[in-house]
Amino acid sequence: MKKTFVTLPQLQDIVERYPTPFHLYDEAGIRANVRALRAAFAWNPGYKEYFAVKATPTPGILNILKEEGCGLDCSSLTELMLAERCGVTGENIMFSANDVPAREFAKAHELGAIINLDDYTDVDFLKETIGTIPETISCRFNPGGTFTLGASNEGFQVMDNPGQAKYGMTRPQLTQAFQRLKEMGAKRFGIHAFLASNTLSNDYYPALARILFQTAVELHQETGCHIAFINLSGGVGIPYLPDQTPNDIAVIGEGVRRAYEEVLVPAGMGDVALCTELGRFMLGPYGCLVTRATHFKHIYKEYVGVDACAANLMRPAMYGAYHHITVIGKETAPCDHMYDVVGGLCENNDKFAVDRMLPKIDLGDLLVIHDTGAHGFAMGYQYNGRLRSAELLLRPDGSVKLMRRAETPEDYFATLVFDGGEG
Amino acid sequence: MKKTFVTLPQLQDIVERYPTPFHLYDEAGIRANVRALRAAFAWNPGYKEYFAVKATPTPGILNILKEEGCGLDCSSLTELMLAERCGVTGENIMFSANDVPAREFAKAHELGAIINLDDYTDVDFLKETIGTIPETISCRFNPGGTFTLGASNEGFQVMDNPGQAKYGMTRPQLTQAFQRLKEMGAKRFGIHAFLASNTLSNDYYPALARILFQTAVELHQETGCHIAFINLSGGVGIPYLPDQTPNDIAVIGEGVRRAYEEVLVPAGMGDVALCTELGRFMLGPYGCLVTRATHFKHIYKEYVGVDACAANLMRPAMYGAYHHITVIGKETAPCDHMYDVVGGLCENNDKFAVDRMLPKIDLGDLLVIHDTGAHGFAMGYQYNGRLRSAELLLRPDGSVKLMRRAETPEDYFATLVFDGGEG
Repeated sequence: MKKTFVTLPQLQDIVERYPTPFHLYDEAGIRANVRALRAAFAWNPGYKEYFAVKATPTPGILNILKEEGCGLDCSSLTELMLAERCGVTGENIMFSANDVPAREFAKAHELGAIINLDDYTDVDFLKETIGTIPETISCRFNPGGTFTLGASNEGFQVMDNPGQAKYGMTRPQLTQAFQRLKEMGAKRFGIHAFLASNTLSNDYYPALARILFQTAVELHQETGCHIAFINLSGGVGIPYLPDQTPNDIAVIGEGVRRAYEEVLVPAGMGDVALCTELGRFMLGPYGCLVTRATHFKHIYKEYVGVDACAANLMRPAMYGAYHHITVIGKETAPCDHMYDVVGGLCENNDKFAVDRMLPKIDLGDLLVIHDTGAHGFAMGYQYNGRLRSAELLLRPDGSVKLMRRAETPEDYFATLVFDGGEG
Repeated sequence: MKKTFVTLPQLQDIVERYPTPFHLYDEAGIRANVRALRAAFAWNPGYKEYFAVKATPTPGILNILKEEGCGLDCSSLTELMLAERCGVTGENIMFSANDVPAREFAKAHELGAIINLDDYTDVDFLKETIGTIPETISCRFNPGGTFTLGASNEGFQVMDNPGQAKYGMTRPQLTQAFQRLKEMGAKRFGIHAFLASNTLSNDYYPALARILFQTAVELHQETGCHIAFINLSGGVGIPYLPDQTPNDIAVIGEGVRRAYEEVLVPAGMGDVALCTELGRFMLGPYGCLVTRATHFKHIYKEYVGVDACAANLMRPAMYGAYHHITVIGKETAPCDHMYDVVGGLCENNDKFAVDRMLPKIDLGDLLVIHDTGAHGFAMGYQYNGRLRSAELLLRPDGSVKLMRRAETPEDYFATLVFDGGEG
């Protein structure tokens, strides 16, 4: 049973000031979660979480994470600029992207960010672009093939296909890149890999860590490079379905520690710092989309129309993803009505839920769509001329802070040329 | 073999003034196509195409279509405002949406648009909202079940599931709605239906027309309402694959005429005007995304990195859609290299092509991604902080007009609150 982090009276108060739909975030939940994460990795003195900005590129959120000791994982020029405007610079930024334009490497270097190279050709491209190779540098590893993890919280397999992914270097390229970077002046090396997305398994990070730790030992022996940090990147997921068991970050941290002590410590590499680049795990459950039931429709199915649409949350339309829905104030009512919950987009995939059992919904009811805190607002678009909503922060004292205002038609029109304009 | 509407020398000239990536549109192609469409339906004196604004919501395009005698099909407040700013008002606007907020009905009424009601409950909701029922009104029909059309250009079936679609009224609701609207003062009625998307078949429109014409005759007999127009909506598609045969709009128009003469004329309804709401057919082939090869990557596959990404064209990432690619200037070179053509988004589905046979690509080559004129720019997002591109018009005289400037980071930051902001 999924619970909301906001109550009906709180929401009734909020909607008087901010019209639905909006995304609402739970500051207390975000802070408690990041503290649990840091506690789980406290055994590693150099540990740092670099929050994946792409998940929730909102300064009001980034500032909270900064206060809690996190760095930022940026993947584009605008994300670097966002970090800068939040006062996050230097090695508190990890810059990871593929297909990087020169100006993005230049900006990352200007800010003193750690640069994570995606491809072997990036070694020379970086040197050409910024005129030097930074003393601290990281490379992304792609082991190829298929990654399979038999055990999981839910008994199903974790599986992904790194060999089909566009990211990272092959194992031989990794050795070549380290050798060449060392010749060019690099002194502190990092290794990064991402093998599976949104895993619900306490075994994923330990399994990934073991692969990366072994690779680090080999690379150190082959090249003599000083492996300063290992970046486990993202992939630790959240339960979107109500009957799924959440990951236990303490168990995950302990699993990584065992791998660390079994592989790195015996190799004399007990000084390696770990980093993570979690996004979904950090924010997913601590955000929700609040929307109002505005229409009922009875044709071949029962439809509830709401004032949000895929422009505000694209995951159901794009991936058929499940997002739990609570009809706020009716948490204990029987779920004896089957509805499709739909938005007003002229796209038939604009459905937040299909054949969902819910309590009887009345016009004006407020619906909380769960787990929109990561890759929710961030993936929004303006198809059909629909506008993206506000983002609000619910503070621990119950007050509400506006972190992002709702778009207006003028925002939508901002780039248009109405009167000609010669090229 | 798909041809580009722009040549290498033209593009070399354009990219000197506008950096890649950008969407480029072909004014001559757009005008020729709309004229062919109007010719195909010239036998129907009241015929009008209402361009589906959602496909390409760009005033520079809308103005061309307006000059060619088209109206606009709008589905949201911002699209209505866009029409207004382009000087399109009155019955030159068709307003069709589901889950319509009151302010959108109010704006449509203020502009004198024809309102197309999606649901039976909209009858009363419209009356409450605007205080009246307009003399001209339309209702959307959903026949339910599965729509199947055996024959098609390509020999495959056209199939869609209206019964699973959130749109329109059932057949009994349509009768009820017409009766009630008539009592409330409506005088001129329209019927609208959409049964299948992006069909490649000269038989789709005639088959749909036959269903709607028969329905119109029945409704007229049952209710005595004057059926003034029938709206075939969209669904006439374009060939994305190079070996597909395009629809022949003259054959389609002739097929609709036969149905008209066989069903409507004998019923004494030879004065019914037809409308269409084509989007993809109007613009799809007459726009392309121009991007530059900026990176090569050899790991488990061969990758060409380009400076566009899914932020500029989401169809391949969202639907796995095929978009043909021409390496401009290498049109006659053998396609003997297999590439994945990818963008720089931190999403592994950000691939414009997978295992595509292309000529050998060199760094700096310009790639033309075809058929992006509809639902291309319009579905763009800003995930990863990526910015949406400019839209340019290639005029018949070879000159280029800027219709929409590229976004800047300041556009991306426009709605953010950086310094607190109390609620």
